Amino acid sequence: MDSVRIIKLKESVFADNDAKAEELRQKLKDKGCFLLNVMSSPGSGKTTVLTRLINSIKDDYKIAVMEADIDGDIDASDIIKNTGAEAIQLHTGGMCHLDAGMTATGLAEVVDEKPDIIFLENVGNLVCPAEFDTGASRNAVILSVPEGDDKPLKYPLMFEKADVVIVNKMDAISFFDFDLGVFENYLRARNKDCQIIPLSAKTGEGFNLLVDWLKSEVTDWREKDE
Amino acid sequence: MDSVRIIKLKESVFADNDAKAEELRQKLKDKGCFLLNVMSSPGSGKTTVLTRLINSIKDDYKIAVMEADIDGDIDASDIIKNTGAEAIQLHTGGMCHLDAGMTATGLAEVVDEKPDIIFLENVGNLVCPAEFDTGASRNAVILSVPEGDDKPLKYPLMFEKADVVIVNKMDAISFFDFDLGVFENYLRARNKDCQIIPLSAKTGEGFNLLVDWLKSEVTDWREKDE
Repeated sequence: MDSVRIIKLKESVFADNDAKAEELRQKLKDKGCFLLNVMSSPGSGKTTVLTRLINSIKDDYKIAVMEADIDGDIDASDIIKNTGAEAIQLHTGGMCHLDAGMTATGLAEVVDEKPDIIFLENVGNLVCPAEFDTGASRNAVILSVPEGDDKPLKYPLMFEKADVVIVNKMDAISFFDFDLGVFENYLRARNKDCQIIPLSAKTGEGFNLLVDWLKSEVTDWREKDE
Repeated sequence: MDSVRIIKLKESVFADNDAKAEELRQKLKDKGCFLLNVMSSPGSGKTTVLTRLINSIKDDYKIAVMEADIDGDIDASDIIKNTGAEAIQLHTGGMCHLDAGMTATGLAEVVDEKPDIIFLENVGNLVCPAEFDTGASRNAVILSVPEGDDKPLKYPLMFEKADVVIVNKMDAISFFDFDLGVFENYLRARNKDCQIIPLSAKTGEGFNLLVDWLKSEVTDWREKDE
């Protein structure tokens, strides 16, 4: 493989994906479905955050969830189903990310039921999912305290793409070398505008800020022509 | 993108990579350099494990380290350099994994100095690095306790490729829902033969087992025609 050939392949893949993402975004807007793309490392707590978030807002919104796994014998959608939300499990067949085409395929049926909010639990990976626009209304990144405060420097694209960065497992902060001020400085060097929400999905500490952020974004999105 | 086209591209890339990996493996064998490919999620403690490991064995072996980052303003190689080992920093230009060609390019100069052991700190990612043979003598996977005991089910290929699985941050196990027995069952369903070493790179608990494993593997590799 020479590097020039790789770059050309990637450019063509990205252009194709961007067009499909815009098409899906428009379809979702027409149906009134707000799509939140949730990205993180493996084990940062995506399912726990989503479960608590759904339970916090399910009386106000009709909710669906699509969970992507590269393979997976664990059916995380059982956990989600217990919240009462519509749950879709998508196996990516080894792919390390979701692209817009895969997202559109996975959502094809559920969109016709017009949920207010669809949560997309992307593949656990801080690298590749950042490169592919899924067609989402907003991008959320979850970083957990045990992963360390330097991650915006090591995985810059992921943090650049975030509309909100959730710092999870704050209940464990005394156990790890994680400085929230240092983290914020690193993050701000890459992303001046995103919301930063430290919380614990386990204890509920700080979680109301995430609920408020989401409600506000959904309202903004409904009112504006995005 | 239709899926058939993707698969064909991937197959050709993998075949090309496999040939380059074998070529590098032979070159390393000729020079007497044992290459350990270290893979994990972001934030599982690769650098901390490597630093303690190098300090434990540096009187017995000549050591070099190549660290791969997709970008990176943090120069982790400074931490490694403090151990006295030769340190190489490789920026992958956004790529989510190392392939054999990138590894060979990065190691070209250092191999001529004939280190006994080269540690390859791969990109923090539990998905893509598993797909590309780097030409390493052995593959190590680090999983940290806060990531959860279900990871062999969610990221099966990574755990299938491992010769050793290091369970790091064992000092924090009382803080998280991580059951070592459950983890071992999930792992064994995917990989019957790999060594499992629970330890804490922070406290040193269990670390002697990793040192013993590495020394034994280097001896085996030297004696056998691999």
